Amino acid sequence: MLPSGFQTSALRCGVKKRAGDDLGLLLADAAAPAAALFTRNELLGAHITVCRENLTRSGGSVRAVLVNSGNANCATGVAGVEDARELCATLAAAIGCPPEQVLMISTGVIGARLPVARIAAALPELLAQCSADGFERFARAIMTTDTRQKIVERTGDGWSLVGCAKGAGMIHPDMATMLAFALTDAGLPSDPLTLLRASADRSFQRLTIDGDTSPNDTVLLWGSGRTEVDGEELEGVVTGAYQELCRAIAADGEGATRLITVRVTSASSEAEATHVGRLIATSPLVKTAVTGRDPNWGRILAAAGRAGLPLDLERVVVSIGDAVLYADGRPHPECEPQAHRHLADETEVTLGIDLARGRASAEVWTCDLTREYVTINAEYRT
Amino acid sequence: MLPSGFQTSALRCGVKKRAGDDLGLLLADAAAPAAALFTRNELLGAHITVCRENLTRSGGSVRAVLVNSGNANCATGVAGVEDARELCATLAAAIGCPPEQVLMISTGVIGARLPVARIAAALPELLAQCSADGFERFARAIMTTDTRQKIVERTGDGWSLVGCAKGAGMIHPDMATMLAFALTDAGLPSDPLTLLRASADRSFQRLTIDGDTSPNDTVLLWGSGRTEVDGEELEGVVTGAYQELCRAIAADGEGATRLITVRVTSASSEAEATHVGRLIATSPLVKTAVTGRDPNWGRILAAAGRAGLPLDLERVVVSIGDAVLYADGRPHPECEPQAHRHLADETEVTLGIDLARGRASAEVWTCDLTREYVTINAEYRT
Repeated sequence: MLPSGFQTSALRCGVKKRAGDDLGLLLADAAAPAAALFTRNELLGAHITVCRENLTRSGGSVRAVLVNSGNANCATGVAGVEDARELCATLAAAIGCPPEQVLMISTGVIGARLPVARIAAALPELLAQCSADGFERFARAIMTTDTRQKIVERTGDGWSLVGCAKGAGMIHPDMATMLAFALTDAGLPSDPLTLLRASADRSFQRLTIDGDTSPNDTVLLWGSGRTEVDGEELEGVVTGAYQELCRAIAADGEGATRLITVRVTSASSEAEATHVGRLIATSPLVKTAVTGRDPNWGRILAAAGRAGLPLDLERVVVSIGDAVLYADGRPHPECEPQAHRHLADETEVTLGIDLARGRASAEVWTCDLTREYVTINAEYRT
Repeated sequence: MLPSGFQTSALRCGVKKRAGDDLGLLLADAAAPAAALFTRNELLGAHITVCRENLTRSGGSVRAVLVNSGNANCATGVAGVEDARELCATLAAAIGCPPEQVLMISTGVIGARLPVARIAAALPELLAQCSADGFERFARAIMTTDTRQKIVERTGDGWSLVGCAKGAGMIHPDMATMLAFALTDAGLPSDPLTLLRASADRSFQRLTIDGDTSPNDTVLLWGSGRTEVDGEELEGVVTGAYQELCRAIAADGEGATRLITVRVTSASSEAEATHVGRLIATSPLVKTAVTGRDPNWGRILAAAGRAGLPLDLERVVVSIGDAVLYADGRPHPECEPQAHRHLADETEVTLGIDLARGRASAEVWTCDLTREYVTINAEYRT
């Protein structure tokens, strides 16, 4: 199942309180190019400091990636950074590679020190169990509040890509949160970060559950380079795979009953379309309207109205599914039953707005806002 | 109760579906200076177009303000603007003043035409009932989903000010929403808009329920000029009165159980403090933590971390009530019971963050996010 050149394993070492695996490893047969993007939050998980350090030192050449769930190693100060460095060095010694070729990534509760000795003690078994077919178990080991693992696979001509993500939305700064991995046996371009940024701009940067970002968000792209692949082709495949993971994350958003795709069309630029899409996708009123299966075009229009763009209200079109609810400068209540059926019957719903400003478009993904979201986030720590 | 030079009245004319008054009038004995601020949403209630027009034509001189609840006259196109103009002219003719000295303000459901004939027919009785002591009834007549009227009074040396507001938060683009009025017999400065902006910057601009703005938001300041008052003194009184209204609106936020004051200190500017305060106050995770009475300093810190400012995590201090939960670069879990008691026992709670960047500070007001908020916003239209 894994692209050639990679192995993986996972086990339970006891970082996470509840049952299940909590430690995962991705291992390359030989050091291979990787690129990573991290949260822009000023509160940073310790692993981000160490990953940046190691990627710089190794020139982006990575042999192993260790991931723990249950503890974010965040807001743990200098000691937390030392903990991550120590584990990288321990794993590197066991593999027999330079420490800077090892990355360590943490997700889980903020503010608690990593159980370094316990993790270190589990490394020999983790290495011994490595195989080419444990990716699903790895994807489960990195979960925190997710209800299901999120895996994507793509096949090219003589190469393949697998990816996985965790995060029930970017909704847990204190269960610090979204991680996404993509492994391929395609060769990465000489500047893999540019490809990764372009793909993430069209995927993870267009995903929002509640507007909150986490201190630990990390997206990693890693290529063993067994097959030469055209850069544009690779970027397309990576972007598509990441988009599939985004939709899976939104669909598994805490308390969510609907995956919402916000589709903004006829914008003057893709950035403008994305900006408007994010405003709609983060509006609690839009999200609760979907919860109520209410074809509330007014909330969509008002959210777009906050974008700071001149809107020509005589030409803007608002739709839900295929039902046009506002056009020609006025509401079309006769189409509301059709829109209501779309919201009631489909688990994936589409909210559309045509800005009548240009030719660019973008999609943004989110989920509805339910009483269960409030319950989960009001109650799970106390 | 009203400052000298003003009268008011209210009655039910049947705009609003549910029982209660839905039409209110503020009337000055003679045209007097007024200034108004309106929403920055691109989707604008028709009354805003007409208010701007009339204030420009009259040079900010206002004789009467007519307010209806139950219908926002929003997304009603050119016809809606004509409706508002017609009602201003009808009322002006009945009073015997130029039409541009009359303002009309609407709040309620988006997308439906105003019942112009019905409102026009009610104007004679509305005028006949004008008196100096109907302000409370006026404040109730302009309510939509509010559970209580919000009134403020201030007394100066030989002058007074009364104010009222409606809006269960800025949470109803489709019950388009926040209105606030302040009437005083003090004389306004020659440029009252500057005073109004300064006061609103420190009050309504620091109020958020869910980050959504409404197409109809309007703040009006009106002075009959019977008493000369120092401009700075007046600005202080207006600001304080508006802040009291903000707190009342947040406390009456839909589903709210807690008024939350976010206090940001040691910022490098007041704008920076306000920016950070807004991020904390709009974070669903912070708000649901308060719902759960969970002293979750990590969510506060992570919300501030999204501000795009360099944060010195060794010097930043996060507190809830008087309990310091994060300082000296580490959590202080021993203080969590005290913070929990603050959240559990007080209906007005304070979340504090000291940025260690400078000497400016600001407060932002919001409320917690509850299951009832979701219920109300998911269910009330369908």
